[in-house]
Amino acid sequence: MVPVLRHILDARQFTRPWLEHSLFPTALRLQQTPVDQLEKALSGKRLFYLFYEASTRTRVSFEMAATLLGATVHGIDSHEQYAQEERLEDRIRVLNEYPHDFLLIRYDQEGGASRAAEVSRVPVINAGDGAGQHPTQALLDVYTLWRELGHVDGLRLALVGDLSYQRSTNSLAYLLTQFEGLHLYLVSPTLLRMRDEVREHLTSAGAVIEEVRDLREVASQVDVIYVTRAETSRLEHARRFEASAGWYTVDHDVLARLPETGRVLHPLPRGPELPPELDLDPRIACFRQAANGLYVRMALLSLLASGEA
Amino acid sequence: MVPVLRHILDARQFTRPWLEHSLFPTALRLQQTPVDQLEKALSGKRLFYLFYEASTRTRVSFEMAATLLGATVHGIDSHEQYAQEERLEDRIRVLNEYPHDFLLIRYDQEGGASRAAEVSRVPVINAGDGAGQHPTQALLDVYTLWRELGHVDGLRLALVGDLSYQRSTNSLAYLLTQFEGLHLYLVSPTLLRMRDEVREHLTSAGAVIEEVRDLREVASQVDVIYVTRAETSRLEHARRFEASAGWYTVDHDVLARLPETGRVLHPLPRGPELPPELDLDPRIACFRQAANGLYVRMALLSLLASGEA
Amino acid sequence: MVPVLRHILDARQFTRPWLEHSLFPTALRLQQTPVDQLEKALSGKRLFYLFYEASTRTRVSFEMAATLLGATVHGIDSHEQYAQEERLEDRIRVLNEYPHDFLLIRYDQEGGASRAAEVSRVPVINAGDGAGQHPTQALLDVYTLWRELGHVDGLRLALVGDLSYQRSTNSLAYLLTQFEGLHLYLVSPTLLRMRDEVREHLTSAGAVIEEVRDLREVASQVDVIYVTRAETSRLEHARRFEASAGWYTVDHDVLARLPETGRVLHPLPRGPELPPELDLDPRIACFRQAANGLYVRMALLSLLASGEA
Repeated sequence: MVPVLRHILDARQFTRPWLEHSLFPTALRLQQTPVDQLEKALSGKRLFYLFYEASTRTRVSFEMAATLLGATVHGIDSHEQYAQEERLEDRIRVLNEYPHDFLLIRYDQEGGASRAAEVSRVPVINAGDGAGQHPTQALLDVYTLWRELGHVDGLRLALVGDLSYQRSTNSLAYLLTQFEGLHLYLVSPTLLRMRDEVREHLTSAGAVIEEVRDLREVASQVDVIYVTRAETSRLEHARRFEASAGWYTVDHDVLARLPETGRVLHPLPRGPELPPELDLDPRIACFRQAANGLYVRMALLSLLASGEA
Repeated sequence: MVPVLRHILDARQFTRPWLEHSLFPTALRLQQTPVDQLEKALSGKRLFYLFYEASTRTRVSFEMAATLLGATVHGIDSHEQYAQEERLEDRIRVLNEYPHDFLLIRYDQEGGASRAAEVSRVPVINAGDGAGQHPTQALLDVYTLWRELGHVDGLRLALVGDLSYQRSTNSLAYLLTQFEGLHLYLVSPTLLRMRDEVREHLTSAGAVIEEVRDLREVASQVDVIYVTRAETSRLEHARRFEASAGWYTVDHDVLARLPETGRVLHPLPRGPELPPELDLDPRIACFRQAANGLYVRMALLSLLASGEA
Repeated sequence: MVPVLRHILDARQFTRPWLEHSLFPTALRLQQTPVDQLEKALSGKRLFYLFYEASTRTRVSFEMAATLLGATVHGIDSHEQYAQEERLEDRIRVLNEYPHDFLLIRYDQEGGASRAAEVSRVPVINAGDGAGQHPTQALLDVYTLWRELGHVDGLRLALVGDLSYQRSTNSLAYLLTQFEGLHLYLVSPTLLRMRDEVREHLTSAGAVIEEVRDLREVASQVDVIYVTRAETSRLEHARRFEASAGWYTVDHDVLARLPETGRVLHPLPRGPELPPELDLDPRIACFRQAANGLYVRMALLSLLASGEA
């Protein structure tokens, strides 16, 4: 079968049948295979990563995913001096001349992965482009919902924190539009509201959206709390959160209200919005979520290699 | 045989029988095997390193040791942005979800490796924790004494330099308590004396300790000079050394006094305390010592994998 | 056959017969072999890289070259803290104790690779030493001339830009002396003229040299324009270029004058001296040149391993 060239750029490109019949079952099968019995489906393949912004979790999980399936990994990290000095397109055109099969790119500005995809001769995977998207994070988030709750349709989710500059919640919101009967509570400071285009995408897909000031108001009515980190390195953000941090924090009070069958997800790394003292509560699913990331990325690379993505 | 989970955290955890019957013979056998005939004892194993502080020698020697025995190596370097931003325990809990068999950690504060070991599901190896310990350095130092001098019991050693903030000398002093009849000359500025708890550990184990102001006073009476680098990046240290640098330096005069069968060790990298002009003297053993590090680390990983550590 | 120990330090060390009968045909054969049919000629070999100055292209192409031929790669990057703190010679002497077969070094000062070669027990490859040389860049440049134009003898080349601090043009000029009937136009600001010793080397080898102020003057008379980046991070350089940047730029006007069979080379990364708008012109060969780099480096490592270099 001839592989179909397909870039992974934007969570809007995934369809429900592909999620349910390709990605999720492949990820689940990989997750249930003992690591020393994994088929080397990527043997002889090469993944190249190009990071213009630091990452650890995404780089490490892709690197492990590729290696466990037999691929070789090369890359350029964000600290390497010339990373910022050379035009992205030039860098990709040079890579085009080197044998490789996947290009994983993290860029510090929105649109970086799309620019790469216009030039690259191999499938480009967007590993985060500034405040834009992080589509593989959305895939692992929705896979986690499916694994933890058995279904995604009809879920009531609270998305909590900075919903404006967070590529994780952007991508998750887009991907959720593949599912039906969703009720989303958007819990964020007014100045960090979810962007208009994302909210419109959700409502036009039939999701019910409600903006909420304080997580405690809705904690008893949701199946899932998806909480994100306040980017405290941006001072203005810090200030906006300061007075009302409790409104966006998963604390004892919030957990007391959350249903027994509820779940708390977080893309990690976390800040004070999810205090580690609560980790023993089995509804806190963020480490299982991180684990899922490895298998979702293995599945994605496998499907890309076999032309099923 | 079921592997025994065992972390490598503190030089006090090693016993003399384990050194003499497991570690040293294994390291020696590996060192005497041509590199292309090494058995791939770690085939299918994965070592993950997590460095919160820069290293080159320790990382490279472990990476080579693991690779030469067939393992795969992944890691996160100290320059990666989020390294400092995420709680150590969170990072380890995510790694717990990824397939790996060893965790090598260097942390910038004392106790980092112990914190990691409380959370990690795989053996943790302390590759240096601030001013705390560096137990695998002590293993290679004592292996070097054994290889160079044929025995460790009864040796007279001068430990020279900053004996307070040096994790290498802390760990070495602890490990030496496994041996008998030692006479240790501690040659350091008053303000950088060996810590009380380390000295007490030595004396309660029967070692004779003598504090000395000037290496020249004792050079003729020792079998080994173990000299360390003055951490000149700390200004106050630099000042303390300034007036009396000669007292802690291995110079022509010191070598002239050192017995013909004596040895000079240094954990490297070195500063002015061990001038390269003297390297032709065969008693300067620091590069053989560095070589030993590779084989001691190979042996340690092998023993951990087979449950003999 | 016993391998001959041979360091790759200086473009003056290569002979025309070796280029024409060893390097070029080996590189060409590798370039024409499908990547999954490459013979693992370096299986069991280890390349160690030691970079005191950042690089991406050179490191990545050597790393890929070595890996594609079956070698293992380890290394120390320029960002690693102690890189600057330890004497180069000490670092090499420690590496001497570790199993490796090639040492690739980039140093921030002229002469670094030679210093390494005096100590190293394995072949040292100079990957750039400050404003000194970059001999493997010259190899790929001349290989590109041979591939693009079919011959090197008799070519008329314009070398354009900073010809004083550019190790690429230094090395290229030296290597060109292996060929006959060359006419070189040196197009640079007066203060960034090609160094006397390089020009003398060229003229004593029979090349005709002409210094020119403006590339447009000679564009119609040359076969090749070799243009380099103005190192704008050096403010004084920037100023020297400022008033007359157009003189050293490949623009529409220059391309209109360049013969149809001409070629434009650039070692990359590029700055404003080679605007991307012109890339569709097939005479712009800089990406084919970068591709050639991979195969020239594979050939070089192969020849070093088999004792033919």
